[in-house]
Amino acid sequence: MNQTPQDWLTAFSTALSAQDIPAITLLFHETCYWRDLLTFTWNIKTMEGRADIAAMLVETLKKTSPTDWRITEPPEQEADHTHVWLAFETASAHGIGRVTLRDGKAITLMTAMSDIKGHEEPRGVKRPKGIAHEADRNRRTWSESRADETARLGAQDQPYALVIGGSQGGLALGARLKQLGVPTLIVERNARAGDSWRNRYRSLVLHDPVWYDHMPYLPFPDNWPVFTPKDKMGDWLDAYASIFELNLWTSTTCDMATWNEASQDWSVTVTRNGKPVTLRPKHLIFATGAYGPPKKLDWPGIDCFNGTLLHSSAYAGAADFKGKRAVVIGSSSSAHDVAVDLWEAGADVTMIQRSPTVVVRSETLMDLGFEIYSEEAVARGINVDKADLIAAATPMAVTVDQQKALYKIVRSRDAAFYDRLAASGFALTFGPDDSGLMMQAMRTASGYYIDVGASELIARGDIAVLSGAGVAELTAKGLTLSDGRQVPADVIIACTGYQSMNETVAALVSRGAADATGPCWGLGSGITGDPGPWQGEPRNMWKPTAVPNLWYHGGNLALSRFYSRFVALQLKARMEGLSTPVYAPPLPHPARTQTAEHKPS
Amino acid sequence: MNQTPQDWLTAFSTALSAQDIPAITLLFHETCYWRDLLTFTWNIKTMEGRADIAAMLVETLKKTSPTDWRITEPPEQEADHTHVWLAFETASAHGIGRVTLRDGKAITLMTAMSDIKGHEEPRGVKRPKGIAHEADRNRRTWSESRADETARLGAQDQPYALVIGGSQGGLALGARLKQLGVPTLIVERNARAGDSWRNRYRSLVLHDPVWYDHMPYLPFPDNWPVFTPKDKMGDWLDAYASIFELNLWTSTTCDMATWNEASQDWSVTVTRNGKPVTLRPKHLIFATGAYGPPKKLDWPGIDCFNGTLLHSSAYAGAADFKGKRAVVIGSSSSAHDVAVDLWEAGADVTMIQRSPTVVVRSETLMDLGFEIYSEEAVARGINVDKADLIAAATPMAVTVDQQKALYKIVRSRDAAFYDRLAASGFALTFGPDDSGLMMQAMRTASGYYIDVGASELIARGDIAVLSGAGVAELTAKGLTLSDGRQVPADVIIACTGYQSMNETVAALVSRGAADATGPCWGLGSGITGDPGPWQGEPRNMWKPTAVPNLWYHGGNLALSRFYSRFVALQLKARMEGLSTPVYAPPLPHPARTQTAEHKPS
Repeated sequence: MNQTPQDWLTAFSTALSAQDIPAITLLFHETCYWRDLLTFTWNIKTMEGRADIAAMLVETLKKTSPTDWRITEPPEQEADHTHVWLAFETASAHGIGRVTLRDGKAITLMTAMSDIKGHEEPRGVKRPKGIAHEADRNRRTWSESRADETARLGAQDQPYALVIGGSQGGLALGARLKQLGVPTLIVERNARAGDSWRNRYRSLVLHDPVWYDHMPYLPFPDNWPVFTPKDKMGDWLDAYASIFELNLWTSTTCDMATWNEASQDWSVTVTRNGKPVTLRPKHLIFATGAYGPPKKLDWPGIDCFNGTLLHSSAYAGAADFKGKRAVVIGSSSSAHDVAVDLWEAGADVTMIQRSPTVVVRSETLMDLGFEIYSEEAVARGINVDKADLIAAATPMAVTVDQQKALYKIVRSRDAAFYDRLAASGFALTFGPDDSGLMMQAMRTASGYYIDVGASELIARGDIAVLSGAGVAELTAKGLTLSDGRQVPADVIIACTGYQSMNETVAALVSRGAADATGPCWGLGSGITGDPGPWQGEPRNMWKPTAVPNLWYHGGNLALSRFYSRFVALQLKARMEGLSTPVYAPPLPHPARTQTAEHKPS
Repeated sequence: MNQTPQDWLTAFSTALSAQDIPAITLLFHETCYWRDLLTFTWNIKTMEGRADIAAMLVETLKKTSPTDWRITEPPEQEADHTHVWLAFETASAHGIGRVTLRDGKAITLMTAMSDIKGHEEPRGVKRPKGIAHEADRNRRTWSESRADETARLGAQDQPYALVIGGSQGGLALGARLKQLGVPTLIVERNARAGDSWRNRYRSLVLHDPVWYDHMPYLPFPDNWPVFTPKDKMGDWLDAYASIFELNLWTSTTCDMATWNEASQDWSVTVTRNGKPVTLRPKHLIFATGAYGPPKKLDWPGIDCFNGTLLHSSAYAGAADFKGKRAVVIGSSSSAHDVAVDLWEAGADVTMIQRSPTVVVRSETLMDLGFEIYSEEAVARGINVDKADLIAAATPMAVTVDQQKALYKIVRSRDAAFYDRLAASGFALTFGPDDSGLMMQAMRTASGYYIDVGASELIARGDIAVLSGAGVAELTAKGLTLSDGRQVPADVIIACTGYQSMNETVAALVSRGAADATGPCWGLGSGITGDPGPWQGEPRNMWKPTAVPNLWYHGGNLALSRFYSRFVALQLKARMEGLSTPVYAPPLPHPARTQTAEHKPS
């Protein structure tokens, strides 16, 4: 048995150098996890158990040549576990790690690439000087160089990476790529960078707190509100694009993309301010939000309805609905927010809850669920980058157990709240295994609500809830539920979610490409809306897909921030012609139906 | 004798509580300094020697009631000195301090207000929530409130503070006032916030490094260049105004301001986008740059000159001057930058050096002069706010001695550089007391250059220098120097500096008001361009002036950042109706002639 973290690390390092895979696996418990972000696998992959770890090492260890393992901070003791921050080098990269030990053996190990050797980000002591301190008759000033870059990109010069979508996902990735010197163009259909936030419904405010929502490189200032209003977020993203000198084409739609096998690049037709432009990037990154297009509304009788029918994505406000009978179909986040927005405007609101919902009070989640993303964490020295690595070091399978424990506490603490809500007829769930909201979100991206006020309206009957039945058909004056109940309606807002991101690929590239990658998100947990087999990682996100040079990037602000680094490193390595052998690459597979609702968070 | 810092502090605190002024002064050495920023004096003032300290305490101690003195960090030992960070409370404020002890007695003490009690800045744990977590039929969203504030300010609602000038000084102050809830309007004559940078000559890049140039609340990201190009600085200021929701009227000139004795406010006429608006603020803050209007060009024969004659403030670039004989009059920073700009464009450049210049190489200044503003300082835990307090804790009189010691090293290290420069005919000085560049800047705001390339051109003769004579007159084809030399010229750029900031007051308020405050800047060091008596602080800046409710704010980025806090606290205290007795207020004095050149840094 290894007595200290240094003993363990010495043994681990020695066994790696000796390529003694049996010895390496014996340094892990039988139930163990190794999560790697690019360093060994050029993939984002969690190996579960010794056999998985051994199989991975057989293929990757020799090429990776990890060396120089060292402990970078005093180990953290927590009950019978010890968490240890590590650093190491591979043949091509600098790595950072975090191992959790118990009784001298590893339970979890996370290894992550921080920089590619010779292509380190120019930050801190490596920041650019900004000027050559000598007179120069061929001087090009910053603004001249920048204007030149802007004018040439997409014309004389082609981007190496074309990012579709200029909200937090695309901008975070654009900023990372800019730092790494990867020529990048971001196309955004709206007129301004932050418009995909501005265009949402009036009362929208971020549900996650500020400490969880920072963009890369430029944290929000410490007087920023805990919960960012949508338009303020929009303005921040505008400023962000300017500050990081991102090449962003706004008012630009992406119309069609075709892979050129001969030249190994994409032909992408975009319409910029009404004019078609063809681009030839090497890589195409879909950063079009966490979801694909809105789900189609196809209830029987849909053409008979005489009132106003909108999908939530088209809902901008309730100004016209005062005094009207408004029906919200759905009971996830956007359904709750829309219901409140309608009620605030003076509508008479009914929510149709087709299936039970995971609800947790925002205050409770702040207190219990964001421990490492909080002012207190900052005071303890856990800034957002460190918090991200701590979160990333916890494999999904372990997260499930942690979340079950958390939700026991949540349900006990807020028992009175849940009782009142249930008494109103609202159907509650905490997931099929009682793992709560975050797992629900990771698995199905649907069926949850962080309560910022709607639950009180439901509990006291200001928003009526009809639960336990679906929509059978629409009628001239409302709708009929599957159990026969009639619901009169002047206005129906369908908060019925979105298709998966690969449906955007179907629309722009081809059905075949969309089917080859399959849907995005979901962990393969085997529950309704997240069919198996178990993946251990979100499907298709931030890593190579089954379609060469096509990538999916995005998620909420936190995921966009953290994973943009790894998408950028993968693209940079390819641009530099480094060897990037992908361990366990995805195989093209037949089309699957994504049965889950996909709704905005 | 007190043996430890805590012993000293206990004795100091006890004597303050007992109001035993003799005992207090005996805790200081005979040669000693107490610099106070608002806590005792509601002024920015350095007391020099025990008698000054005693006199200040006689007037202020009882009202200040300082208590709860404590040491906040482990004391720092440096040779035979010990530096100690302090915190304390007064009747109305929270204070921070730094004392330097030797042999158990204080050499210097700095006391500074950090927050007014009950009006602490909403930062960190006190940040706003951004949303009430409940449904509300009277909800006003962030964007609605912001739009309403914008529409009303200057119409139905009058600003408490009107800030003239929307570059770094005005924006830094605006951000501070916004945090403190002081209704503020900033007027800027240019079309965009950063235009006063953008409109400068093509090659301009900040001469100070990034660690010294942060704005309040939002440090530059760590990939920001060391030296910021002017247009990039402009874009940063634009983003800054948006991010901090500043009420900024661009394309707005300030035309006239009159104090209303009866209503105790100002009537200020501004022209906004061509339309006159009258504003009624309680306070008027001039943040119009470190200088007043350009000095008038009034050489004999000025109307005879057939070429192009420009003041440096009107110089935007040398595109038209290729192959022309260009004469730069002056030898301070802008003269050097303009000379390089002309040379780079292919002009034949001659510099007329009317008096010797303090020059220091940028690399040398970075190595030796910015120790607490550097990547290394950041790594040691000295962030910009801490560095500012360290700098502020050093009284001007002590700074002089430190700078003399620094420039001994500079001159020795760069002896070869200075020898080459002198050999070209360029006249060097290090100030009348050899205290170098920073003191020259603080005293006269003129006559210095941080070398970023011009000196090499001068040394090798690419830029000719004619030294030791003034301009006698202009002729049709050039100019005649006071020693009779003729200098042919197609283009003359007069880098002859600016008038003092109070001349802007003369133009907008009255000659009387300008004369009552007297000029800004200068320390009263008694040298040419900085007439005595000794002030120990920059004249008139950031503190009450002889004209009620009229303030001067600004300086470079560092001074704007740090002192904006104290200007904001003074305005907030007045708005809240707190008692703010000013110790040693400035007396109106007869007009003085500011004989120094004032030139841009």
